[in-house]
Amino acid sequence: MARDPKYDILFEPIKIGPKVSPNRFFQSSHCCGLGSDRPGAQALFRGTKVEGGWGVVFTEFCSIHPESDEFPYTSARLWDEGDVRNLGAMCAEIHRHGGLSGVQLWYGGVHSPGLEAREVPRSASSLPSNLLPARTIYAAEADEDDIKALIQMYVLAARRAQEAGFDLLEVTAGDSTLPVQFLERRYNKRTDKYGGSLENRARFYIEVMTALKRACGDESAITTRYEIDTLQGPHGIQATDEGIRALELLHREGVCDLYSVKIGDYEEWGEDAGSSRFRKSGWMVPFVKEAKRVVGATPVVVNGRYTSPDDMVNLLKSGVADIIGAARPSIADPFLPKKIEEGRLEDIRECIGCNQCVSKFNQCGLLNCTQNPTAMEEYRRGWHPERFDKVKDACSVLVVGGGPAGMECARVLGERGYDVHLREAEAELGGHLKNVVKYPRMNEWSRAITWRQLQLAKLKNVEVHLGVGKMSADDVLEYGADRVVIATGSHWREDGLGAEGHSPVPGLDASFPSCITPEQLVAGKPIVGERVVVLDGDGHFTGISMAEWAADLGKKVWLVTNMSDPAEYSQFTLEVQNNKRMMHEKGITVFRNHWPESFENGKLTLFHLYRHGWALRDPVTGELPRRESKDIVVLEADTVILATSRVPNHELYQELKRRKNEWEKNGVEAVYRIGDCHAPMQISGATFAGHRLAREFDSPHPQYPLPWIRERQLWGAETLPNLGDARPQVEAA
Amino acid sequence: MARDPKYDILFEPIKIGPKVSPNRFFQSSHCCGLGSDRPGAQALFRGTKVEGGWGVVFTEFCSIHPESDEFPYTSARLWDEGDVRNLGAMCAEIHRHGGLSGVQLWYGGVHSPGLEAREVPRSASSLPSNLLPARTIYAAEADEDDIKALIQMYVLAARRAQEAGFDLLEVTAGDSTLPVQFLERRYNKRTDKYGGSLENRARFYIEVMTALKRACGDESAITTRYEIDTLQGPHGIQATDEGIRALELLHREGVCDLYSVKIGDYEEWGEDAGSSRFRKSGWMVPFVKEAKRVVGATPVVVNGRYTSPDDMVNLLKSGVADIIGAARPSIADPFLPKKIEEGRLEDIRECIGCNQCVSKFNQCGLLNCTQNPTAMEEYRRGWHPERFDKVKDACSVLVVGGGPAGMECARVLGERGYDVHLREAEAELGGHLKNVVKYPRMNEWSRAITWRQLQLAKLKNVEVHLGVGKMSADDVLEYGADRVVIATGSHWREDGLGAEGHSPVPGLDASFPSCITPEQLVAGKPIVGERVVVLDGDGHFTGISMAEWAADLGKKVWLVTNMSDPAEYSQFTLEVQNNKRMMHEKGITVFRNHWPESFENGKLTLFHLYRHGWALRDPVTGELPRRESKDIVVLEADTVILATSRVPNHELYQELKRRKNEWEKNGVEAVYRIGDCHAPMQISGATFAGHRLAREFDSPHPQYPLPWIRERQLWGAETLPNLGDARPQVEAA
Repeated sequence: MARDPKYDILFEPIKIGPKVSPNRFFQSSHCCGLGSDRPGAQALFRGTKVEGGWGVVFTEFCSIHPESDEFPYTSARLWDEGDVRNLGAMCAEIHRHGGLSGVQLWYGGVHSPGLEAREVPRSASSLPSNLLPARTIYAAEADEDDIKALIQMYVLAARRAQEAGFDLLEVTAGDSTLPVQFLERRYNKRTDKYGGSLENRARFYIEVMTALKRACGDESAITTRYEIDTLQGPHGIQATDEGIRALELLHREGVCDLYSVKIGDYEEWGEDAGSSRFRKSGWMVPFVKEAKRVVGATPVVVNGRYTSPDDMVNLLKSGVADIIGAARPSIADPFLPKKIEEGRLEDIRECIGCNQCVSKFNQCGLLNCTQNPTAMEEYRRGWHPERFDKVKDACSVLVVGGGPAGMECARVLGERGYDVHLREAEAELGGHLKNVVKYPRMNEWSRAITWRQLQLAKLKNVEVHLGVGKMSADDVLEYGADRVVIATGSHWREDGLGAEGHSPVPGLDASFPSCITPEQLVAGKPIVGERVVVLDGDGHFTGISMAEWAADLGKKVWLVTNMSDPAEYSQFTLEVQNNKRMMHEKGITVFRNHWPESFENGKLTLFHLYRHGWALRDPVTGELPRRESKDIVVLEADTVILATSRVPNHELYQELKRRKNEWEKNGVEAVYRIGDCHAPMQISGATFAGHRLAREFDSPHPQYPLPWIRERQLWGAETLPNLGDARPQVEAA
Repeated sequence: MARDPKYDILFEPIKIGPKVSPNRFFQSSHCCGLGSDRPGAQALFRGTKVEGGWGVVFTEFCSIHPESDEFPYTSARLWDEGDVRNLGAMCAEIHRHGGLSGVQLWYGGVHSPGLEAREVPRSASSLPSNLLPARTIYAAEADEDDIKALIQMYVLAARRAQEAGFDLLEVTAGDSTLPVQFLERRYNKRTDKYGGSLENRARFYIEVMTALKRACGDESAITTRYEIDTLQGPHGIQATDEGIRALELLHREGVCDLYSVKIGDYEEWGEDAGSSRFRKSGWMVPFVKEAKRVVGATPVVVNGRYTSPDDMVNLLKSGVADIIGAARPSIADPFLPKKIEEGRLEDIRECIGCNQCVSKFNQCGLLNCTQNPTAMEEYRRGWHPERFDKVKDACSVLVVGGGPAGMECARVLGERGYDVHLREAEAELGGHLKNVVKYPRMNEWSRAITWRQLQLAKLKNVEVHLGVGKMSADDVLEYGADRVVIATGSHWREDGLGAEGHSPVPGLDASFPSCITPEQLVAGKPIVGERVVVLDGDGHFTGISMAEWAADLGKKVWLVTNMSDPAEYSQFTLEVQNNKRMMHEKGITVFRNHWPESFENGKLTLFHLYRHGWALRDPVTGELPRRESKDIVVLEADTVILATSRVPNHELYQELKRRKNEWEKNGVEAVYRIGDCHAPMQISGATFAGHRLAREFDSPHPQYPLPWIRERQLWGAETLPNLGDARPQVEAA
């Protein structure tokens, strides 16, 4: 099918300085944990997006010099010839597919942890980092010699970027990086020509851009990513005031070939990468809409987690932007542009805004995606998001359970040509995710269900049977399938058992009216009374969602957690700040590092995890080797919601395993298990597990993953740099 | 000098199964962040310890199979031939120096984050991890086939370990690993022959040990690290009860060649690696002392942050242990045994128990050490802890400031042959560390001063001038030194400025009697009144130490921090649990995510960082783009202690820099700056900065570090494993 002409505007080429992007799809810089240290994975991860139609694809933030070292977090780097070689692989892959490659030149200043390089970063003033306040990160105040050296760092890194093959050289003046540390009053306490007035504070940024334009502007596009509003009101940079005025100052110089405009600062990164629980597609338009007016014909990029081509067209037609920037939508579907082009809109796998991707980066790990299990696996496992090896001798497969793992497994088995029966006990697909999408403000996550539902419907060799009830082991054995995949999910504990203590809590029992599991709440079990305690042993989105649910019903809510912070995982998903704002607004009270001893007559007795003495005393059998404390807190609770931990629904698998001797006579060759019934996991893990099993369904032991390519130094191989290599000279002699 | 005969016992060889350790110094397994991915750094880091006299040196914990994947944390791995090659480099280096190499075979079970491998770990029961409770880590319950597969994983990894050249194969049954998850009732809910009675719960551990003995015991020593007391009292494993009984069961089998005995579990790792603020050398003896009685002639290793050879001898003579285990003391001084052997006890650089080392691992970074700046730099920068390149044309160097950076720089310059004058304004060396060691229970940190003091005294070409007062720029220029190093440190802000807001707080002023900086407190400025608020914007040890100081004086104390947890950095140093216990015991109340607006008439007005609404509204100049809240908390405070942030004492450097045109006529070639006066940093960073400058003092631009060897994949180099490689088969066919 051809594309609908109304989307033609998205496919118009556009000039960016001396370069031309083939279309208006622009993967703006986003982290993934590969950096310049895993070159093959980086090249294929980014290159696949160009194959899928993204006209411009960037690295993550890329350090220009060891002084600005994000380790233990992973940035790309352009420090030496090794980085040129490694990022060169990415550029080559992007060019092979006809796209432009971009690099975000990054100097973090006061926000550089520096744990690998152990150097001292420079900034406008000598202040502590508010991004990682406990880690003792301070910058040195740059004098005018330092400022020259810093500009030279940008220039040398830009030249290395050209050597690697990058087409767009982007200076980030977003994420509270060095140009912002000069621009923003809270970071800039200077009294020289780089401090004070807006003109002075913008000087460094403009000098960097000008130096790059002169050094590299003939061959490369010199672009910027610019934080037009820090969302701090008059204390920060406001779009309506200094944000737009600084843009005017920069644009006047005529040194920038493209403006990519964003909001939020580094400590509130979640306002830029807003999760769907808090921000809907396009939320930053009111802040960035004036940029285009200032910069005239120069292209403007605006992001906003756009997945709908109609919204994209509207954004361009409204005159706010010339190009659609995207990070997460390009991860969830690397082939999004191609699918618009081919008129296959229903095949677009939309980002659900769960921020799993960044949550893994923030753990110092590797990105993964709830919607796209092939993300980051293109090189290391050889997986292509849209291509599947057809199976030679297709057998029949019964998949029991239509949650995230079962749906994805059935889909990929179907793509591979197996004869698949997906059987779901309930009337609709989705498994426990059907409940999750009913939690407050979580509806966008339903895209993970609906996309799979549609894809399954298209596959002629996949039958989906709904509302078939729970299958017994007999049902499975008698079903007639050659191979069986169990994907029966998990459920919430009904007895208060959580990671703290790993034991049920006396008095907590979801068969009582006063105790409710998340499933029961969604199913309509009423909250009794006005005082509600949510017991959160999970720490991701469930506990806090239950608390908000009850608060929205007008209840007085306490959230009790064994962890040190409510919804602790939200520190990784960038939601922690807005979670805390929501709790403050709704009057939810938190008990951290507490867990119940018992629940009796409406009294929930809590203990502090660290109530006993810190000193150790000699061991005596039956006694704690500390000064023991009996301190408790008693909460009067009418209802306790139990989000303490989950239990795999593994009985069916276990019974089938026990009856292995009956398989052969029933024609069953093998039984596998995936997702929560194997072990409760995040949704991204369950989707991955289903996908992985189907990809490797013809391997010798499909239950167990095959090796993948591990990119790391092998002893005896070349190293770069080497001892005795000179430091790139940026300082005056 | 020869060694004192009373230490001979430490140097007696000892048989460990089929191997013989040359002495009683045993570097037990400890992490460092290198794993099997940075083979050169790993080989030299560990090998240097053997050169320094450690008879046995281990890897960090080493994963036996991708199912047990600690990523994003870094373990060693023995998954494939690439790991064999990489860890083989370490074994070769250890053997070159005449030591034995050990590997700790690790399967983490329910505590495996698995973010690289994305596999499902197995355990005794299906429960959530209490180590990382927010990360949704659950294990699958192992059935009997799984148990066979798990044992086979150990065996295959052990064989790969032999191939790499390891002499000791240690099964960890510590740190809440898989054998402990079977052994401990809280993790083991089984009803089969692997659950229930102690005999049943110990079965898995014993079967693993037995399988290894059979498979590898002829050539390799089969050893274990065993958690004899989890310190949870009757709810866990007690040394006096199940701890010793399980040891008896294992020993009865005769399959173990050495027992390394420890205490504490993974979630309270800080009881094993106790910091000096909470645990003094040898603290676990009361818990481990009965092990030797049970295991008879089989060697027993006991750790306890021993740095004194007399304490070591006492431990051996008391019959508690045969071998001294050490992790941190071997990092702080890789040459500790050699120094005992050579009768140079005063040269031993003792561990201060600050836990910087593990704090970096816990950030997913690379270990570093406050006492030993060469740790982990042996390969990548080519630094040897005891050898220094002599300078050819020694010039004279003035070092201004005798804190951690200045002392270390002067020492290394002295070792290299420079003519050094170290001038300290005050009457004693130590800089701000002199204050730190006076904080509650911090006295052991003084070793970082005294060791340098002694070393400086031994260097004939280093003059130390004490009590000389602050040097002016004129003083420096007229001093007559060829080159100058400024190391003038930092001081605490006196106006309440912290990372939150980066602005002074109206009413906070350390010139008032009611406001006190940490320096003022140590210097004797009295705390006024009974209600004390500690304002902690630092998050490491200072704020909490101030709170404890005031509480110990009987004051009512509040700790106010912008961060989400008090002393937030202590999550990395393993002190968070005992910090919280201490605060609970001493009645210290915490306000998290709060910061003051003002201090007036004894009222400290606090705001919650997230008091405003979570929704964004359109920007209006001068307004916050959220529903604005004026909510405050008012604390009545008689005294406010200001641990908000630090200011570099950089005026001297800046003035010298401004007067650069006067250098030549005064014979000054160069002026450098190091440590806190460059930018406030951790003590380990300052020591490193001083050391690094001195090591590279004859490089073209000594102020700026030279490149180091970056071990990572280079594009085009070989990879291992590769796509299509078979998975090692551990499951039944």
